[in-house]
Amino acid sequence: MARVAFLGLGVMGGPMAGHLAKAGHDVVVYNRTAAKSLEWVVEHGHLASPTPGEAAEGADFVMMCVGNDDDVREVALGEHGAVHGMQPGSTLVDHTTASADVARELAAACAERGIGFVDAPVSGGQAGAQNGQLTVMCGADDEAVFAAAREIVMAYARECRRLGPAGAGQTTKMVNQICIAGLVQGLAEGINFAQKAGLDVDEVIATISKGAAGSWQMENRSPTMATGTFDFGFAVEWMRKDLAICLAEADRIGARLPVTALVDQFYAQVIERGGRRWDTSSLVHLLQNP
Amino acid sequence: MARVAFLGLGVMGGPMAGHLAKAGHDVVVYNRTAAKSLEWVVEHGHLASPTPGEAAEGADFVMMCVGNDDDVREVALGEHGAVHGMQPGSTLVDHTTASADVARELAAACAERGIGFVDAPVSGGQAGAQNGQLTVMCGADDEAVFAAAREIVMAYARECRRLGPAGAGQTTKMVNQICIAGLVQGLAEGINFAQKAGLDVDEVIATISKGAAGSWQMENRSPTMATGTFDFGFAVEWMRKDLAICLAEADRIGARLPVTALVDQFYAQVIERGGRRWDTSSLVHLLQNP
Repeated sequence: MARVAFLGLGVMGGPMAGHLAKAGHDVVVYNRTAAKSLEWVVEHGHLASPTPGEAAEGADFVMMCVGNDDDVREVALGEHGAVHGMQPGSTLVDHTTASADVARELAAACAERGIGFVDAPVSGGQAGAQNGQLTVMCGADDEAVFAAAREIVMAYARECRRLGPAGAGQTTKMVNQICIAGLVQGLAEGINFAQKAGLDVDEVIATISKGAAGSWQMENRSPTMATGTFDFGFAVEWMRKDLAICLAEADRIGARLPVTALVDQFYAQVIERGGRRWDTSSLVHLLQNP
Repeated sequence: MARVAFLGLGVMGGPMAGHLAKAGHDVVVYNRTAAKSLEWVVEHGHLASPTPGEAAEGADFVMMCVGNDDDVREVALGEHGAVHGMQPGSTLVDHTTASADVARELAAACAERGIGFVDAPVSGGQAGAQNGQLTVMCGADDEAVFAAAREIVMAYARECRRLGPAGAGQTTKMVNQICIAGLVQGLAEGINFAQKAGLDVDEVIATISKGAAGSWQMENRSPTMATGTFDFGFAVEWMRKDLAICLAEADRIGARLPVTALVDQFYAQVIERGGRRWDTSSLVHLLQNP
């Protein structure tokens, strides 16, 4: 078993750190809001530290799952950041969905200190974190560093793959979000059309979902789209954060994202209607209520 | 076993009629181009007729699978059309992807003559027709008429469901195509982004395809999109025909299809580049070659 620090106990990080504790690792946690650390400590019987740097002291692996690029820089590299407590030969694993730039920046800062780095954004949502069934998309400059980190990560993952050097985990997560954006909008247009045509949405989906129109989103989100229930986890404001990263990276690498950019604008309209915390399937709301 | 006429022996109708012959039905075929009828007759050992009306004489069921609304009207209701040969109590099943209007028009014309009608567009492509694994989406005013027709249709279907009155099969097929349009564009944007980001597309898809971005299109079309191979069956010009039907019906029922309309325009651009016969995944070509 390893000594592992986990930084960031949000809806994803909290259960992920819990799986590490259950797996028998020696876990120390840190969270910006100390009350959450305390809750986690009471539930899991491990220690909490007041700063990322102190949590990271003596750790073999430091996992982090925070909000955005700025949070990543602060928690990893800031005055009380993790790298200041980490020892050479240890590894930093960043589960935050962030830019590929920040991944490369962290990889360089770690390399200077003899620390390994893996960017490792996840998909699978809150349910995946709770059930330990996340998909983890990794970038790492060193295969051996990745392989050792993977052993730890599998405590909460069903799939953990290295897609290339530092940053490749983030760009793979971007591909995931780009595919979802067009897919969910197409599904929303289909569901709204079915309703306007007087069809029974459940019957229609049961008929077409095994064929060429089929998707995870169709199986899982059609009934909730049809009833206008938008409380299934991944919030519109988080999707807009992710799509902003995708659109910026696309500009950098010269990739066109016409529909992704349009769907991002639709999500902006959902937010204008008070849907900041609705889930991503709320695109159908714009069509149902023009 | 029943007496069945099959009108239209294209890439879909040919194998569908073949499955009826194999199932032991007494089949008579008609095709506009007589040479195709002859080929089919030589292969399957059943009869061909020179007109739809003559093929339909004495048939319990008349199945048709032709090109578009005008073809449907000509073959079913024209001077030598099927209904003129059909007897009261028999049923006309139209597998053409056509408008909901033409379905209702045929249902009314059949009802006047005491003939049953089922609009029954299919999905599953050429492979589905050959393997007898089509999904058939039906509209019928009479449940008993549908139930009897379903017995015949199952010779080439894995799923055959009634979604409502005449026209409901066509509107369900429209939902299918609408969902596919947004989905394929999202996938194309994701694949092109992955390539521009220097990722291995096969590895990326293997990682994300079991999660929330997963779809039939992702499983089946990602490798061909990545290599720019656009010969997998459903042609861009057919998709544009279907999307035109969707967009017209959407106007009629007041449903908004912003991304479907945009993707239709992208397909117009594919055709301008000579891609009339490329398959629908060729949307990625526009992104790869702006």
